[in-house]
Amino acid sequence: MEIDPDTSEPTQRWGIFELTLAGPVQGNPMHDVELSAEFRLGGRVVEVEGFYDGVGEYRVRFSPDVAGTWECFTRSNRDEMFGHGQTFVCEDADALNHGPVVVNDKYHFLYADGTPYYPVTTTCYAWAHQSDATARRTLAELRDGPFNRLRMFVLPCDGQHNPDEPPHYPFELIDRPVGDEDKPWQWNWARLEPAFFRNLESRVEQLSEMGIEAELVIFHAHDRWGFSKMPAEARNRFIRYLAARLSAYRNVWWCLCEDTDAMPGWSAADWEHVAEALQQSDVHGRLRTLCGESRPYEHQRPWTTHTSVRHIHVPRQDELLDWRRQTHRPLLIDDPGFEGEKPDDHASLSAEELVHRGWQAVVAGAYPGHGEMLDDGGGRAWSYHGGGTVGEAVERFIFLRNVIEDGPPIGFEPIGPYVAHKADKLYLHYFGPLRPRSWPLSLTRHAVYQIDWIDPFAMTIEEVDGHYRHGDAAPMPARPYTVLRARRVSLA
Amino acid sequence: MEIDPDTSEPTQRWGIFELTLAGPVQGNPMHDVELSAEFRLGGRVVEVEGFYDGVGEYRVRFSPDVAGTWECFTRSNRDEMFGHGQTFVCEDADALNHGPVVVNDKYHFLYADGTPYYPVTTTCYAWAHQSDATARRTLAELRDGPFNRLRMFVLPCDGQHNPDEPPHYPFELIDRPVGDEDKPWQWNWARLEPAFFRNLESRVEQLSEMGIEAELVIFHAHDRWGFSKMPAEARNRFIRYLAARLSAYRNVWWCLCEDTDAMPGWSAADWEHVAEALQQSDVHGRLRTLCGESRPYEHQRPWTTHTSVRHIHVPRQDELLDWRRQTHRPLLIDDPGFEGEKPDDHASLSAEELVHRGWQAVVAGAYPGHGEMLDDGGGRAWSYHGGGTVGEAVERFIFLRNVIEDGPPIGFEPIGPYVAHKADKLYLHYFGPLRPRSWPLSLTRHAVYQIDWIDPFAMTIEEVDGHYRHGDAAPMPARPYTVLRARRVSLA
Repeated sequence: MEIDPDTSEPTQRWGIFELTLAGPVQGNPMHDVELSAEFRLGGRVVEVEGFYDGVGEYRVRFSPDVAGTWECFTRSNRDEMFGHGQTFVCEDADALNHGPVVVNDKYHFLYADGTPYYPVTTTCYAWAHQSDATARRTLAELRDGPFNRLRMFVLPCDGQHNPDEPPHYPFELIDRPVGDEDKPWQWNWARLEPAFFRNLESRVEQLSEMGIEAELVIFHAHDRWGFSKMPAEARNRFIRYLAARLSAYRNVWWCLCEDTDAMPGWSAADWEHVAEALQQSDVHGRLRTLCGESRPYEHQRPWTTHTSVRHIHVPRQDELLDWRRQTHRPLLIDDPGFEGEKPDDHASLSAEELVHRGWQAVVAGAYPGHGEMLDDGGGRAWSYHGGGTVGEAVERFIFLRNVIEDGPPIGFEPIGPYVAHKADKLYLHYFGPLRPRSWPLSLTRHAVYQIDWIDPFAMTIEEVDGHYRHGDAAPMPARPYTVLRARRVSLA
Repeated sequence: MEIDPDTSEPTQRWGIFELTLAGPVQGNPMHDVELSAEFRLGGRVVEVEGFYDGVGEYRVRFSPDVAGTWECFTRSNRDEMFGHGQTFVCEDADALNHGPVVVNDKYHFLYADGTPYYPVTTTCYAWAHQSDATARRTLAELRDGPFNRLRMFVLPCDGQHNPDEPPHYPFELIDRPVGDEDKPWQWNWARLEPAFFRNLESRVEQLSEMGIEAELVIFHAHDRWGFSKMPAEARNRFIRYLAARLSAYRNVWWCLCEDTDAMPGWSAADWEHVAEALQQSDVHGRLRTLCGESRPYEHQRPWTTHTSVRHIHVPRQDELLDWRRQTHRPLLIDDPGFEGEKPDDHASLSAEELVHRGWQAVVAGAYPGHGEMLDDGGGRAWSYHGGGTVGEAVERFIFLRNVIEDGPPIGFEPIGPYVAHKADKLYLHYFGPLRPRSWPLSLTRHAVYQIDWIDPFAMTIEEVDGHYRHGDAAPMPARPYTVLRARRVSLA
């Protein structure tokens, strides 16, 4: 094996090292050509599949998780790409690069460099399929907002919300129905379109630069093109390609599907096959889930790393606690419904209700989600197109995020319905529709606390005079939707 | 058998005929003396147990359900009360007497004379154990209020809410602990105190005169006297006595227990025994239930006539629909929590939340309940002591009752979450926290409707111009907690 001298720029830890090789253009590179690369550092060996990026260019992407000088060499069924070897230097990450998010302390998360991470999620399903101008507005909105995680569809999204054709399709188009909507679109399932994925990864990268995690929802049912019915062989090719191109981005999370019940002809076994394909292809082991409707999806599936739920029925607080306990995983309320005025019971929540659901999640030791389907004045809505938000909830999620990031750098653990704490140092008791005038405090004994009243919608925090201990009756404002916060000031 | 001539006033149908006989004072009349009477009209025969009312007086109470001349004669193990016979005339009921409430159309109710009855319930647990002055205030409040059903404890009620001793005890007191609260009270379980029951029945009668159904909650756990631990033999005597004295009142309903889980040492079998004793003793067959906590109590128990639920967890709307379907009985949300400001998650609901729960019940084809634990300024609260209400929900229940009594004289049937109708003539769609700007109408085809917007808290009804049909998009006010009502104006 011949090793080329390393002439590349150093790669950051958790950044992307990319190897580009010239290869065949003829035939079907997606089907006929095999390419992979082996990456080595000390005893570590990682085998990474490559992908075809069009016009005779082949790439292998790898995100090194350890600093040092890595070696790589390629394998291929084509001589011109076989046996290419080189080294590259992986240096420490800069201050803005905290690495990928991983599960921590069973129900919580952490960046790989140890920085705490409390997901506050929003959804812009089809933002990757909008114009660059709209995408720029989306990014500007995100820059000023509370969200550190965004859920987005990989595939184009149909529906009243998005009648336009997307700029790219994931497969090569053979025939498009004109005039007859019942006629199916014809795709060459054996040929993926690199431009589609190039666009997708540019959106993922833009989010990564802003420190926003990107949950890629791989399949969904809002489909007029037939992608939700792609044959099993095409699914596997699609998953492998997606993983080869995108898993190296440190901010990628995977969600297999948004709405399994609506998927035409898919069985539980199909989802297992897809999950298996993804696990095999994603050498970076990004977080994986499948969004459940009003309950965790088959919550014991070993391949899920966290639990994602979409509220159809609004859950009781004890159900949130049960889901968390039953799945032994972090619980994310990824789709609590949308702030909106649409004729749809999932898209007509008041801002108050959405903010309520956010706090309900927090005090269950879960992580809140946001969505908005209000018309932005131009027929577009944040949670489909991106662009800008116009609702009242976003600002309250900034306030919410500030409250949950305060205190010890760990997640909230629930100690009963509507009460959660951080290591006895910080308690949140959210009263929802209750509005007592006083409340007996359940705190750690032998410690002294200061308390305040948080109004999640007015975004005010009122300090209450005095010091309090376990068992004391705390005065309360007799106002519904209040959070009572207690912060430990001393042991005694 | 010698029949005395009938010298009494005629008894109304569903009124009370009472036979009074003199008998022994010595010994224990509760234990030693047996008395019953057989009532006959044509082929009908009803055997009714009598009861001892103190100072040598024995009574038999019977509520005839058919007009005509009834015969009765007595049986007793005492000669002086054996073989007394007489006739009495039962005449038609007057306009204010609709008879007892019975189950109708599986999930609904009706007075025996065919008048519709839609229960709107409140709770005054301990009002029967307050002074006459307080009881008069309670009755005055009820006269002006929305409630046609009141839940009340038979036994005295302990707790922070009611530190006073009641004016009467149900059993003869042997010894009362003074100074030592842990020492138990001593009762003669073999001797019931007629004065206790005389007081109770006077309260039931006062409600009856106002057309208010009285649900008597027989056992409960809020007890410092030991009544919740009465021996099995005492329970049976107590149940028999209660049924003999009170079941003749046409407005009586029975609830075996409010909080079975908190009852010391009671098993499911104990409740079956009590239910059996009640069924045997209550010849009038009054409605029977046992209040379940956050779900119907053992909903398939054949002896229950209706389903009563106390919300601990706020249910999801689909759960209400499930409970109704699973029990095949009318569903009453008897205790949805209390409007209040107390340091108790069951007694600190805002008025808005309580009203919301009322409407949530209505559109599930269930019947709403009210409760209030606000301090009335004198340390008393409506749902314990009675007296007066001070909350904001009562007025909204008047409004609610007016809406549900409108339209065809039948109950609302749910056709999905949050939507119910009366025979296609009247639809209610309650949106809870949703606030769409328009909504596609699901109505009967081939009919034309007028629609209006109901604001349950502002108590306004706004008519929307025009006529609407199935499938039309109805304009909506984009305000949460709105009811969309559609009333059929013509077929077409």
